[in-house]
Amino acid sequence: MEELKRRIVEDGIVINSDILKVDRFLNHQIDPQLMKQVGEQFAMAFAEAGVTKVLTLESSGIAPALMTGLQLNVPVIFARKKKPLTLNKGTLTTKIYSYTKEIHNPVYLEENMILDQDRVLIIDDFLANGEASLGLTRLIEMAGATVAGIGIVIEKSFQDGRSKLDQAGYSVFSLARISSLANNRVSFLDE
Amino acid sequence: MEELKRRIVEDGIVINSDILKVDRFLNHQIDPQLMKQVGEQFAMAFAEAGVTKVLTLESSGIAPALMTGLQLNVPVIFARKKKPLTLNKGTLTTKIYSYTKEIHNPVYLEENMILDQDRVLIIDDFLANGEASLGLTRLIEMAGATVAGIGIVIEKSFQDGRSKLDQAGYSVFSLARISSLANNRVSFLDE
Repeated sequence: MEELKRRIVEDGIVINSDILKVDRFLNHQIDPQLMKQVGEQFAMAFAEAGVTKVLTLESSGIAPALMTGLQLNVPVIFARKKKPLTLNKGTLTTKIYSYTKEIHNPVYLEENMILDQDRVLIIDDFLANGEASLGLTRLIEMAGATVAGIGIVIEKSFQDGRSKLDQAGYSVFSLARISSLANNRVSFLDE
Repeated sequence: MEELKRRIVEDGIVINSDILKVDRFLNHQIDPQLMKQVGEQFAMAFAEAGVTKVLTLESSGIAPALMTGLQLNVPVIFARKKKPLTLNKGTLTTKIYSYTKEIHNPVYLEENMILDQDRVLIIDDFLANGEASLGLTRLIEMAGATVAGIGIVIEKSFQDGRSKLDQAGYSVFSLARISSLANNRVSFLDE
């Protein structure tokens, strides 16, 4: 997605060879027009996947997931990182390992949100080591539903998440694939 | 907003006389078409307010804020409840008191996100005691900018947040105003 790559180059900040900060249009400030285009791209990519629901993880996944759900005309669910007071006893949960913080963080999904006949598209802002996406696939599979695909806004292709998801047999589509953040420069895989 | 009220009555769950659960279309599962209509209503209500940015608080405010920013064609910023690793040293912060949890929770905004010439529209999912909205006004005022208005999806008019915001001189527009949740029933202010 050329417009996304342009924004990554123009507004992204390379913190180090592992971390790209995109707080200007995705993770803190959001560009709604860009997110609309992101949603249109995901909707096109998964048009034939029979998607009945979109699932993401709060908070940075919500904007691209919402725009994708709008285009596909299906509900959007965000898994929660904290168990809210109003969440039912019947809650699906799994732990997602954070390599940066070196801890397992629980995520929660109310159990009647996803039904066994659902085909669920996972949308997330970043794909690095794949732990978040794999955690969401576990929640979907706990609910007895099917993973229809995984849409990623920015893939760090130099980390092993993509190959883990490919090996697990999921259909992955990433809008921007970054091959390197070395030397304070963003390089894309298809350059 | 009639469609919103209809959804509150049909899909909302009254937990007790203080708490309404709207996890089916706003707080856990999101209805993108309804959120689009919510954004259109806010954009109309604040069309003359000279809004340059929309500010909300993660996570449940993001969907209505994003759709409002899309309609107004301005960026959307979500204040964070946790300080992320990639947030700069120059960060604005304030504490928001939670009556339910009886603690003060910090929220964070990177300091160069909002500039002194900005006119910022606050969007939030719920208005109860007004602490969250007032916290966001403090962040805007710390940045030297102007609060252009406050748009609320669901106002619990039987709590004192609305009168606090009115008294502070802010322009508040709520799409659904709930006068009571007593007896397991949702009553609206203009019924």
